[in-house]
Parts: sequence; structure tokens; C-alpha cells
Amino acid sequence: MTGPRYTQLIDSLPASVPFVGPETQERARGHAFLARLGANENVFGPSPRAALAMTRASREVWMYGDPENHDLKSALGAHLGVSPENIVVGEGIDGLLGYLARLLVAPGDPVVTSDGAYPTVNYHVAGYGGVIHKVPYKDDREDPEALIAAAADTGAKFVYFANPDNPMGTWHDAGTVQRMIDSVAMGTVLILDEAYLEFAPADTAPKIDADDPRVIRMRTFSKGYGMAGARVGYAIGHRDLIRAFDKIRNHFGMCRISQAGALAALADQAYLAEVIEQVAHARRDIARIARTHGLSPLPSATNFVTVDCGQDGDFARRVLGELVARGIFIRMPFTAPQDRCIRISCGRAQDIARLAAALPDALAAARA
Amino acid sequence: MTGPRYTQLIDSLPASVPFVGPETQERARGHAFLARLGANENVFGPSPRAALAMTRASREVWMYGDPENHDLKSALGAHLGVSPENIVVGEGIDGLLGYLARLLVAPGDPVVTSDGAYPTVNYHVAGYGGVIHKVPYKDDREDPEALIAAAADTGAKFVYFANPDNPMGTWHDAGTVQRMIDSVAMGTVLILDEAYLEFAPADTAPKIDADDPRVIRMRTFSKGYGMAGARVGYAIGHRDLIRAFDKIRNHFGMCRISQAGALAALADQAYLAEVIEQVAHARRDIARIARTHGLSPLPSATNFVTVDCGQDGDFARRVLGELVARGIFIRMPFTAPQDRCIRISCGRAQDIARLAAALPDALAAARA
Repeated sequence: MTGPRYTQLIDSLPASVPFVGPETQERARGHAFLARLGANENVFGPSPRAALAMTRASREVWMYGDPENHDLKSALGAHLGVSPENIVVGEGIDGLLGYLARLLVAPGDPVVTSDGAYPTVNYHVAGYGGVIHKVPYKDDREDPEALIAAAADTGAKFVYFANPDNPMGTWHDAGTVQRMIDSVAMGTVLILDEAYLEFAPADTAPKIDADDPRVIRMRTFSKGYGMAGARVGYAIGHRDLIRAFDKIRNHFGMCRISQAGALAALADQAYLAEVIEQVAHARRDIARIARTHGLSPLPSATNFVTVDCGQDGDFARRVLGELVARGIFIRMPFTAPQDRCIRISCGRAQDIARLAAALPDALAAARA
Repeated sequence: MTGPRYTQLIDSLPASVPFVGPETQERARGHAFLARLGANENVFGPSPRAALAMTRASREVWMYGDPENHDLKSALGAHLGVSPENIVVGEGIDGLLGYLARLLVAPGDPVVTSDGAYPTVNYHVAGYGGVIHKVPYKDDREDPEALIAAAADTGAKFVYFANPDNPMGTWHDAGTVQRMIDSVAMGTVLILDEAYLEFAPADTAPKIDADDPRVIRMRTFSKGYGMAGARVGYAIGHRDLIRAFDKIRNHFGMCRISQAGALAALADQAYLAEVIEQVAHARRDIARIARTHGLSPLPSATNFVTVDCGQDGDFARRVLGELVARGIFIRMPFTAPQDRCIRISCGRAQDIARLAAALPDALAAARA
């Protein structure tokens, strides 16, 4: 035998990937999408100040980025009212979820998540041999009590909870989330994914108590700040847990240009406020278009609208397929009964216009 | 007990990190370095075409990067004469080494490296519970025969070999490396780290046989292409091994701006050739300055010069400390007897002038 001998765990893993990117679909189609509304990207883009900072930083890209992410952590700490010691910066929330799974999950260890929640969590947990226990959604929202109960029942290393939720766009208020934190099972970490928080009503996130060892909160520059391609996520948690990331993370993994862009984006809260307005406007437009064609938009605290197509998963998959065939990139929930819906990210006026133009034909084709 | 229960492996890991970054040192010093010559960064920077591509890409950073790195892999494949299926792109060689360690190393698994070679390899191996067997350098070069023998003796999952070598700057010719590949132990992967290859003589790398399952080659845009801060590394290997990375990598981990920059940098081989000339010039200058002050520069096939200070490690550490105190950021080998040397990265004329100005005083202070 020559060549690699993989670990037993690696041999047991499927080669499947969490998401197929839109570029892959475009290459298969042979032409670009007319509207890119499938990955909850923020089409309104980064602050001009962030763009300028990234342009400047590209001339300095011969230097490695600061492995401590000192300036960004300091600015985030000041912005959030926590110590930089309570913050770790990583290669998107995806990267941080991978590190956290590695810190906590050994083969056979249980974790809890919602059935149909963010698949990348499951990917990372499976990648370390963990056992995933899934809790159903309740009325298209994650079910806090059931998640907490399942974590206690299974002795979960962590329970994953996104607020606002992806793929449904629904949310719980701060009081409910704080009660989750207060009742999380002994020895369990609540991963509170707040990727979409900037788009949510003011009363969505409980006050940060950064030294609470029961919860780690994940946030990102990918959504509100319009910098998905820069890969800058951060987590806020107890300093011991935050310090543990240093045992395993890719210390020089952050792009220097992205560090500079995130720092400038954070400083431009006025631009963020404008984008939030534009997203809210697009959300209303998508909901209106959906209703016009007999579909039911769900309430959303995110930069996307999940739309109930009113029939089963097969029908929603046909609607999605017909929209994709007409150049509108969207995605949809993976599991029933949420898979009766399609998920449409907020776009600019021209993106929404293309959606509006394509939807009637797509629906007619799906119904035929 | 509230809060995290780490895995046994994580609990066993030290909190130490492979490298302290220059920014950390600058913050401790209270002012910036005069010359940044410690991390083998390429001060000559990226191609102007790469800088332009990155500027353009920063306006599109609202989009995630292509998780398949399709365009970059295609261009690399064409450049190298291999199929894109034989290439994986990752967050620097550091990131790829981490993924590879995860693929191959379970707790207790042996690996082989040189004593004093790249510490990040050891960091990743320890992070997965591997057992590191170290082979001494021989005449300040890695010792191919001893590495191969140790891999056979220990049943190593992989043997790590950098050619040209860091931190010594020395190298072996292509014939020697090909003999290593041909004699690598059954079931062992040779990790051939060619990060510095662009600076080396033409006869340094054996011809790529991408479907040879015994070797995986690591290369980067951090050194020759002057884009360390962009975090773009790639590995060339057997398609099965390359495909295995998809089981565990952070699929959306690459910065979109970096992808665009790397693509443009690769297309500007004329600029690369200019930089290689400038680096060779700086190498000669550093060697001359070292000799002027009674030190012995080692031959180098990299963008740094390792300089024998002619005494023991304590003396070299004093020389380094005195240079750092004078604003010259450099590093040095960690282990004896290579730690009788300091390691100076190639700089622009002004960087080298600052080195030349600081060295006599630094040496006098170290000798005092």
C-alpha cells in the first residue's frame, strides 16, 4: 500500500458538501444568474469607507495579517461593551463553528440542533464524529424549550440556536433567549448564532454578559456589513472558552485586507443603518410580490424572506427549479414541512424587478 | 458544572502559539519596526495587476467567494500542466497543513519532520494528538535519507520536508527530492513544502507527477507573489487525496478578494521574474553586510538569508534581541545547533540600509 492512510473518522465521512455555490450552478448552466438572491448575501455591499480601506490594504498585502486581530477585537470590544479577551475573530462564522466543534466534540459526543437548521453546523459536527440530535421547528420557528430539553436529555456538548433563524427568517425576543441561556443544561454550551441580528427588531438579542460560560454568540461582517466574501466572523464568550480557540485555530488564517475592511465597516454605523433601511424595503417588496401571486411570505427579521408556496416540498422544489431556470438564484429549506417554502434574499430594485418578472411564469410552470 | 466540556485532546493541549506576530511586538515596544524582515514576507509586494484585481474585487465582496476556487484551480492547472482535480486551494499553506493533519493524524499516530523545521506543522500534528519524530539537520540542510528512514522506522502517516528549507534557506536538487519520493515508506505521504520555490534555482523541484499517491506538494502566493496577507495556498497531489480535503475543509473559507488577486498575480509572470531579481539582489546585499561584520551567510534559495553568528545560540539570541531593540524585526531558528544563526528576510534598499546601520551596534552590544 502506497499513499495516504486516512484516520478512521475521515474514512467514515461522506464526500458531500453543505452547499453548492452559485458559481458552480452558473458553470453548469453556461451563463450567469440574472439575480443572485440565494445565499443571503447583502447586495447593497460594504460601506464605501470599508471599500476604500480594502483598496488601501491591498497594497500592504505583502504583510501577514495580525494573528491576534488586535485592532478589530479592540474596536468590536468598544462597540459591544465587552473586553477584547471575550472576542475571537475567525474565517467567517463557518470557520468559528468548525473550531468550536473541534474544541467540544469527540467521536460519539451528542449535540442538539433544529431539524432543518444551518447545515454547516451538522457538517462540522459529523466531521469530528459527533452525534446530532434534531428538534423539529414549531410554527416555523426554532423551539427553545424543546432544544433546551433535548440538550439536557442527551447531555449535549452544545445546542445550536440561530436568532433570527436561517432558513425561516423567524425570531424570538430577547426575553425568550435569555430564558434559554438561564436554563441551558449543565455542561452544555448554547451557540447563539446572531448572524442576521443587524436586520432584526431592537428587542431580539439579550444583553451580552460576556463572562457567562453557558453561551457563545456568533456574529459576522457577512450579512449586515455586506462583506460575505471577506470572511470575517467573530464570537463573543467567556474568556476561557475564547482563549481555547488559540489552541487550535489557524493563527495566520485571516486575510489582512478583510481585517482592514471589517474595521472600517464597523466604524461606519451610519451606512449600516442605511442598508438596514434598504433591506427592510426589499423585504416588503418581496412579500408584496409573493402575495400578489398567491404565496404567503413569513415574517422576517433577516435580509431574506421565506415564502410559503402553499403546497408540499415537491411543489416548492419545482417553483425553485423554475426560478433558477429563469436566472433567479434562490434556495429553500431542506426538511419538511419547512420545505414547502422558498427563500429569497433581499436585493436591489433591479434584482426584485427580475424576480417579479420571473415569478408568474415560474409558478405557472410549477403548477402545470 | 456549567459551560464547556472540552474534548480530552483539547484539554491536553498547551495554550502556546507557533509564532508571535510583529504587530504584537510593536504593541509591546510602543512603536513600529523600522524594517520588517522577520516573517519572510515579500516586501516587494504583489503585481500591480493583482493589486488592481483586488481593488475591483473589494467592490464585489458582498458575494461569497466560489467555494470550488474553480477559476484559480483552472489557471494553476494550466500553469503547472496538471488537472484542476489535482489541486486544492486553502487559507495559506498553514490552513492546508491543518487540513492534511486532520485527514491523516489520529491520536498516537507518528509523523516525521526535521528538528527545527516549520513549527506550524508540529502545532497541527499536536492538535490532532499525533506523535512527532524529529530528525536532526545535517550540515544545515534537511537530511532526506534520515527523514525517509525515520518514516519507515516509525510507520509515519506523513513526513514533512521543505525544499527550499525554512529557517535555513538551504535546498536539495530535484534528483535528490525525486529519490525521496521514490523511496518514501509504504503508506506514508511525503509533504513537500515548496513555499519558497519561486526563488530557487531551476533544478530544485522534480517534475510534477500529480497522480503519484506518495507525495503532496504545497505552494503559496505568500512568498514569490508577495501576497502573504491574502492567505492563498495550494496543494498538488493525487486526486483522491485532493478530494478528501472536501470532507473537512471550510468550503466558504477563502476570501473573494484574495481569489481574484491570486488569479491576476499568476497571470503576471513578468512581474514575478522582476521580483525574483530584486530578491536575489537583496540576498547578495544581506550576505555582503553580514560578511563585512564577520558573520557567515548561508547559501539561500529563498527570500531570506540565514546568517551564522559564529558562536552559540545564546549569542545569536543576543544579536537578535539587539537588532529588534533597534527596530529591525528578524527571527531565528529555534533549535541547536541551527540557533547559532539569525534569519533575515530580503527587503528593499531602504530596509537593507536600516539593517546595515543597526548591525554594527547590535553586534557590539551582543559581544559586550
